[in-house]
Amino acid sequence: MSDLLESALNPQSVAVIGASENIHKIGGRPIYYMQKHGFGGRIYPINPAREEVQGLKSYASIAALPEAPDLAMVIVGGDKAVDAVAQCAARGVKSAVVVASGFGEVGEEGRAVQRAMVDTARAAGMRLYGPNTQGLANFGTGAIAGFSTMFVEVPPADGPVGIVSQSGGMSAMAYGLLRGRGLGVRHVHATGNEADITVSDLAWAVAHDPDVKLLLLYLENIANPELLARTAAYARERDLPIIAVKAGRSESGQKAASSHTGSLANEDRTVDAFFRHHGIWRVRDPHAQVLAAEAYLKGWRPEGRRLVIISNSGASCVMGADASEEFALPLAELAPATRADVASRLPGFATAVNPIDITAALLSNSGLFGDVLPAVAQDPAADLFFINIPVAGAGYDVEAFARDTAAFERSTGKPVVVAAWQDSVAAPFKAQGIPTYVNENDALGTLAQLVSHTALMRKAVVPWPAATAPAMPPGTGQFLNEAQSLAMLAAAGVPVVAHRLCRSAKEAEDALTAVGAPAVVKACSGDVPHKSEHGLVALNVGTAVDAAALFERQWAKLADLGAAQEGVIVAAMRRGQHEFMVGARIDPVFGPVVVVGDGGKYVEALQDVAVLVPPFASPDVTAALRTLRIAPLLEGVRGDPPLDVDALAEVVVAIGKLIAAAGGAIASIDVNPVLVGARGDGVVVLDALVERGG
Amino acid sequence: MSDLLESALNPQSVAVIGASENIHKIGGRPIYYMQKHGFGGRIYPINPAREEVQGLKSYASIAALPEAPDLAMVIVGGDKAVDAVAQCAARGVKSAVVVASGFGEVGEEGRAVQRAMVDTARAAGMRLYGPNTQGLANFGTGAIAGFSTMFVEVPPADGPVGIVSQSGGMSAMAYGLLRGRGLGVRHVHATGNEADITVSDLAWAVAHDPDVKLLLLYLENIANPELLARTAAYARERDLPIIAVKAGRSESGQKAASSHTGSLANEDRTVDAFFRHHGIWRVRDPHAQVLAAEAYLKGWRPEGRRLVIISNSGASCVMGADASEEFALPLAELAPATRADVASRLPGFATAVNPIDITAALLSNSGLFGDVLPAVAQDPAADLFFINIPVAGAGYDVEAFARDTAAFERSTGKPVVVAAWQDSVAAPFKAQGIPTYVNENDALGTLAQLVSHTALMRKAVVPWPAATAPAMPPGTGQFLNEAQSLAMLAAAGVPVVAHRLCRSAKEAEDALTAVGAPAVVKACSGDVPHKSEHGLVALNVGTAVDAAALFERQWAKLADLGAAQEGVIVAAMRRGQHEFMVGARIDPVFGPVVVVGDGGKYVEALQDVAVLVPPFASPDVTAALRTLRIAPLLEGVRGDPPLDVDALAEVVVAIGKLIAAAGGAIASIDVNPVLVGARGDGVVVLDALVERGG
Repeated sequence: MSDLLESALNPQSVAVIGASENIHKIGGRPIYYMQKHGFGGRIYPINPAREEVQGLKSYASIAALPEAPDLAMVIVGGDKAVDAVAQCAARGVKSAVVVASGFGEVGEEGRAVQRAMVDTARAAGMRLYGPNTQGLANFGTGAIAGFSTMFVEVPPADGPVGIVSQSGGMSAMAYGLLRGRGLGVRHVHATGNEADITVSDLAWAVAHDPDVKLLLLYLENIANPELLARTAAYARERDLPIIAVKAGRSESGQKAASSHTGSLANEDRTVDAFFRHHGIWRVRDPHAQVLAAEAYLKGWRPEGRRLVIISNSGASCVMGADASEEFALPLAELAPATRADVASRLPGFATAVNPIDITAALLSNSGLFGDVLPAVAQDPAADLFFINIPVAGAGYDVEAFARDTAAFERSTGKPVVVAAWQDSVAAPFKAQGIPTYVNENDALGTLAQLVSHTALMRKAVVPWPAATAPAMPPGTGQFLNEAQSLAMLAAAGVPVVAHRLCRSAKEAEDALTAVGAPAVVKACSGDVPHKSEHGLVALNVGTAVDAAALFERQWAKLADLGAAQEGVIVAAMRRGQHEFMVGARIDPVFGPVVVVGDGGKYVEALQDVAVLVPPFASPDVTAALRTLRIAPLLEGVRGDPPLDVDALAEVVVAIGKLIAAAGGAIASIDVNPVLVGARGDGVVVLDALVERGG
Repeated sequence: MSDLLESALNPQSVAVIGASENIHKIGGRPIYYMQKHGFGGRIYPINPAREEVQGLKSYASIAALPEAPDLAMVIVGGDKAVDAVAQCAARGVKSAVVVASGFGEVGEEGRAVQRAMVDTARAAGMRLYGPNTQGLANFGTGAIAGFSTMFVEVPPADGPVGIVSQSGGMSAMAYGLLRGRGLGVRHVHATGNEADITVSDLAWAVAHDPDVKLLLLYLENIANPELLARTAAYARERDLPIIAVKAGRSESGQKAASSHTGSLANEDRTVDAFFRHHGIWRVRDPHAQVLAAEAYLKGWRPEGRRLVIISNSGASCVMGADASEEFALPLAELAPATRADVASRLPGFATAVNPIDITAALLSNSGLFGDVLPAVAQDPAADLFFINIPVAGAGYDVEAFARDTAAFERSTGKPVVVAAWQDSVAAPFKAQGIPTYVNENDALGTLAQLVSHTALMRKAVVPWPAATAPAMPPGTGQFLNEAQSLAMLAAAGVPVVAHRLCRSAKEAEDALTAVGAPAVVKACSGDVPHKSEHGLVALNVGTAVDAAALFERQWAKLADLGAAQEGVIVAAMRRGQHEFMVGARIDPVFGPVVVVGDGGKYVEALQDVAVLVPPFASPDVTAALRTLRIAPLLEGVRGDPPLDVDALAEVVVAIGKLIAAAGGAIASIDVNPVLVGARGDGVVVLDALVERGG
């Protein structure tokens, strides 16, 4: 952790500017919390109107303090907040937490004041948290420069979870939900408007706290993806799972976000790809964020997905089986020996196949759970276990079920989760430390998340070697022409269609003979990036005479359009099994981003695409292709051969490397279609459009 | 309600065969429950070993009773259960509830015993519930011929909800969840193996209880769709919402279901269509089933979807906006006057646009809710209201928020739901009768369900008029040939491609001239339903000579295949904007079912289809088409004209009416492709295959 962050998360001295005697007021709470939760450092209330605040000597100003505090909380609002920040900077405060709102989130004027505040801080080497923040809280040290009501509502306990959030409300909610599940929370930090310090900065710091075993993030925008990526890499290295909520997924949500913290929108599909790439698990809200907390904290990192379901209700077996299919947790095929063993322990009408229905016979024999579990545990086909108890109560020895389950978990180390919506049934399992949910959806969702997230966390990210930037053709237009675009792809190792750029009717005639009929004749000009909209693409051209005539017509049409007459392309007509599209662009936030999907005319309308964030390799592309709706076609259906997916994947990697190597000189690459042939037949790019960078 | 069902749901006398003194045993519970919950009729314990059971005179046998009881519960198992059913039948019992398991669910032998039991009952005019059932419970009368533990765990209270379920466990779970929310439940009935009485029978009976305002069903198979459809129609008429869980959605789930109650699988997409068609709302599990119960019981039947979100957290506004988009509840565009009014009541930095962020200023001004709500209520753009309070507690006057919300609801009658995960915050809202959820997902899910379900319930179902069955061509083969299939469609008013069936090369020559080049030449034989797999389809045939040659080749090929030489079709080649497929088949359970979707070669692989259940009209088809992934193409994209969706819809209706009118004579109709032109250009069927019924 850097010194500056250390001064905020583990300060030796904290000043509260706008300190209050009233512990229910924002200026009263931090002092109350710090004194109550064992802060060992020095607390300096600043309130010129009082001699003493909450039993501590009160000071008239930051300047009057006996030392420069590590951290100062600015509770006062408006101009007073701006003044206070200036005074903190002058006094040598290391970190200022600005609670006051009414800055960047209310418009341009507020943003200007906010920027000036940060300039003042930076000039003095002071870091700024907020404004418009609920503050920071470290329950490991008792340094609580925050005012959340939630620390009164739900008493804190130090523990293995860290929360870093733009929103104070969401940090408090995650904290409250975790504490409600009996889990300890160490860090509860909110960044507000992020005028200086972002979620990424604090995530980096908290990830370096060795006692933190689970890190939860809430973001409305990703201001600093590079640092977040490094944080994620470090977290993966030390097996620290990160679970993020990124709100503003929709257009309406992004609009609301910009009026909340004044943040810029991130393209949501790219956000998904970014998180996936960096092994961060994304969920929709704080409820989903805490759902799997116990399972992560158990240290479970399962690699297999094969599930065993055990229930005392046949209907729950049916619904569990349904859910297992939805979560892609296939029911483990138990070995005949296991089934025989299980059957010998169950009454005759119970089901010894998976899902195992031990039936209401559990009512008369409480030992059934303890009998069945070890019998199943020995089966190597079983990776994950789910016990579903939709009904129990008087007459059932639930304590025994819970003890048997815990013993099973300890002896096998395999993940086991329970669904029991009745508090009386859930409580004994929870007391035994077994992750327990209200229904199969949450229980199996947790197991599926655990396996998928583990796979993401363990996936190697191999950096792309540094590459020479591609040579950009001379010129200043926004777009390269098609011939230049194809040449750039070819130079990057991408197979492009055989073609000739012609500057006369005669050349077009010769070109047709060279590439062979039928051919495509299309005008080539950087000024006309979308040729077909202007009728400048002719297909199925069969003769040299036709090619010459088309040359003349297209050449003239370019002139009519006032476009540069850079040539006419005569290209071979090619057939393949399926048309794909590959796109690459420089995202203003995330940098190079690559898209691959179903190609052809309706790419935008049907949006059957997958997003990849560099660096990625061929298998990543193949995996992405399998998420497309057209994925069933990849293996060949209705007599079609399987597609050459590997060749397509290599093209996608090459295009990603090309835009990355260009270092901003290329703004975007649009390749549509890429004709993909049968496996072994390769691929060929038929059309391409490269856009120059700024 | 029929007399026979009346005898089960409202019996005057109940015998318990296998009665026990121990109230925790299955034979003890029903007697205990009936005595405890005020059953006014006569209870007859049957237990030859005792003089008295739970203070009541015990009898040695059914035969020994002073009267034939309306209802008898058969608790004893195995052969004794079979004997008891026979004795009940002999004694004139009207309804027997067979609790014992080990019958239809364990295999063919058990199914045979089960069938024999039903035969015995039917011969005597007795209805049979179960076997393998938890029984029936009517808390309106205290007639509890059931043994669920849950009635001990969660004390019953009579109320407006009815539950009918194949599974005892799921009925108990729904009961427990509803009671846990403070809602009263009258009917809790389980049907088990459904050897005689099905969920549909009991649903019909319970729907006729005028005090029931919400009906929940759990099914693993739909054994009696016709009665369920009639029940749903009656329920819609009296504004009774039905919410169903149909488990066994997946292949694994269906397998598990067949070993649970021995039931047959239903094709899940068809189940979806059936429920939608009959205005039954389908959910995944009992948790989802009870989620919206309060909102339904409020009587809210909203027609508009425009949502207003109010929160004290900016982040919750963002996440609420995200969720609103997912649930297709667009944020209401408040009028300028409304916004000005709201703004005047909020502090300067709060947001007066929707979502309305009243910010943490709520902490210092508890009246903000009460101020803002009426200001928004006056806006006609607002249909639905959502109040999201992710954080509150000490310092917040939550009681006042709840009172203000309830007053708002009473005065406007508009649906308003709350999300508050803290018990202390939720409780005052719940006490005021406001549906309150833990998060925005559940809250907005409830509103979306309410609007969509209301629309389904109010949608008119216009029966198709009785129609003459189509004339089937002579023959006995499984399939009609293509010419016969096209003729049958044409007779039903479906536009089919211009074509001639030729029986000689000369006829083929003439046909080509008649239909015009280019044409399609394809062999026609009921023995070769899949022509292209045998190379029997030639496209782009340009000359009469080619047509003649192709006739000879295909005619010979039919002979080679040993197929009947019924002719060769010469048809016009047609172009359209998009190819669709229309299919119809007789489902063994649901009867005629129609499918429409993206056509062409990859129909099975890509499965972009929608299912319709008769009777339906053109607008239903259009609505179904809008659920397809290719829906964006319907309106025309990339310069394409909009498609002639109306003409396609008429074809789908015609094909549905055709298979329905055939009354089983047609097993299936497969039409692919239907070429759809630009709006106004109509559609044309290019190929069709009709399969004869059994």
